[in-house]
Amino acid sequence: MNKADVVVIGGGPAGIEAAYNLARDNHKVVLVEKEKEIFGHMQTAYTLFPNFQDASEIRSSLLQKTKHGNITLYNNSEVTQVSRENDFWRVQTINGLDFIAPAVLLASGFKTFDARYKEELGYGIYKGVITSVEFEEMLKVGKIQTANGEKPRRIAFLNCVGSRDEKVGNHYCSRVCCINAVKLSIEAKKQLPEVEAYCFYMDIRMSGQFYEELYRKSQEDFDVNYIRGRISEVAPTIDNRLQVKCEDTLSQTPLKMTVDLLVLMIGIEASEGTARIGEQVGVNGEYNFSKSISLHTADNKTKHQGFFLAGTCKRPLTVPETMADARAAALEIDLYLKSLSQ
Amino acid sequence: MNKADVVVIGGGPAGIEAAYNLARDNHKVVLVEKEKEIFGHMQTAYTLFPNFQDASEIRSSLLQKTKHGNITLYNNSEVTQVSRENDFWRVQTINGLDFIAPAVLLASGFKTFDARYKEELGYGIYKGVITSVEFEEMLKVGKIQTANGEKPRRIAFLNCVGSRDEKVGNHYCSRVCCINAVKLSIEAKKQLPEVEAYCFYMDIRMSGQFYEELYRKSQEDFDVNYIRGRISEVAPTIDNRLQVKCEDTLSQTPLKMTVDLLVLMIGIEASEGTARIGEQVGVNGEYNFSKSISLHTADNKTKHQGFFLAGTCKRPLTVPETMADARAAALEIDLYLKSLSQ
Repeated sequence: MNKADVVVIGGGPAGIEAAYNLARDNHKVVLVEKEKEIFGHMQTAYTLFPNFQDASEIRSSLLQKTKHGNITLYNNSEVTQVSRENDFWRVQTINGLDFIAPAVLLASGFKTFDARYKEELGYGIYKGVITSVEFEEMLKVGKIQTANGEKPRRIAFLNCVGSRDEKVGNHYCSRVCCINAVKLSIEAKKQLPEVEAYCFYMDIRMSGQFYEELYRKSQEDFDVNYIRGRISEVAPTIDNRLQVKCEDTLSQTPLKMTVDLLVLMIGIEASEGTARIGEQVGVNGEYNFSKSISLHTADNKTKHQGFFLAGTCKRPLTVPETMADARAAALEIDLYLKSLSQ
Repeated sequence: MNKADVVVIGGGPAGIEAAYNLARDNHKVVLVEKEKEIFGHMQTAYTLFPNFQDASEIRSSLLQKTKHGNITLYNNSEVTQVSRENDFWRVQTINGLDFIAPAVLLASGFKTFDARYKEELGYGIYKGVITSVEFEEMLKVGKIQTANGEKPRRIAFLNCVGSRDEKVGNHYCSRVCCINAVKLSIEAKKQLPEVEAYCFYMDIRMSGQFYEELYRKSQEDFDVNYIRGRISEVAPTIDNRLQVKCEDTLSQTPLKMTVDLLVLMIGIEASEGTARIGEQVGVNGEYNFSKSISLHTADNKTKHQGFFLAGTCKRPLTVPETMADARAAALEIDLYLKSLSQ
């Protein structure tokens, strides 16, 4: 067993931001990441809403932070077991690492909804149906195209895929999809000015700073169209396009539209690591998100001394919210460690 | 001039949470509050969404935190001037206090929209038209009543008063009103089970954890009604009630309704202190909210060394978001102060 001051589980934005700030505070931090690459979902991001900052800048900044002398980063190190041993936490990984530390930070994040569960939307069946993550990757390489390699004439973005959906068991809103769809539609129009962009939504949830303005800008400057309604069915057309069917709930009329790409704005769920470790430690809450001891006054602490939470393992959050929460967690851990040595 | 390590401007949740955590980290903190009482807008809160925690518990917790030995709290001390003097910040107040410190935290918060600017809604004209803050005060004393002291038969809650409104110059969404209206309508039904409650909204923005569930619960367990539409006109009836006029944008039909109380969900604006100090220091952004140096990577820092931001002086935020942001700011300040002494 190797000793550390803190083991941070998860090398995404939350884990790195917390690890870095603990390291700056002279704590020895072990940062374990299950994947080969760090960054979590930031890995696939092209730009960030609402200011279109290049996600590669964030990745560079995060990478730099992991290089702090007090951080030891272990990739390919999925955590298999977290347990309490006397006054310490023991963290074991799939590749045989074994750490003991007075404090653990769970920053194991989220996973995206598996769109195949919404069979009627045709993901995995029709090639023109892709996820928001896949569309972001197209933007990254500057190649928005259909399965046949053609430029799409019309793209539809469908919100609430796996969110606010009783049928798939997720009643909650994933918080980031509406504004992300606005961002993606603007980016699409920047790369392909001729393309027609349609966003389908249930309620347009622009409740962050500059979101409302961006939503407006997407309409005024980029001609993005918004339709209040949920797509109920997708079918292929004879000429390799897709026909989508929905009800426009504002005009209360059924609507059919032919598109070349249907981008599913897939929701946020607790990652498998979040669910598994939360279960082991006993901090699982609703939908397997991890539960802090008090939302309003101690949202980085759990019922267990020395076991802390940061970021989207708790709930869907935006990047700035995640980063602030990670710094908040680092502060709590720093003060906790100091209290032990007094 | 008196010396401190940090001057925290604003004795609301953000200022107190940051001051407390800096104090725990052995920094000498001066906390200045312009009002006689601390707590900011938490002062008037009854319960907090989404878990209906009693706001008095939060106030007790915050009050306790201000009593830390490293914090000196000054009430009735509105800040009049913040200026840079060599490597220090100088903070002067209306009551003659004069501090010098290497770091300042601006936590000067928000003010609520003045509903009189929406003349067509009759606030300040008809007694049955009140603000969400006034309704919260009624809940606090357990007396929901009309101006004549009668139990209301029907209450309407109107969202987006001063938000998403070009006419009053506020394009942005205030983030907290939709869920707060859900909370208020449930509290109303708890205190007056016979009352009819109607919420008017433009989009129902339930994008926080447990918001969607609460919205659903309000309908299923408390019979709260939701109407998608904005009230355009309010007029008194012969029997001392109010007739409200709107268009139901889902059925696209005009609608008139008689109510006893119309509760205006007033939006969030930068407080006067936020605007004035931001102007003096040069950190004012859109709508006079204060601007950090980087939303995604340094959201508590400004372009000025030693001048930090926390909470709703930056943008509309919920209580948990504010508290996390305050801890994040405390961490940044702690590390900044340490860097100076190295």
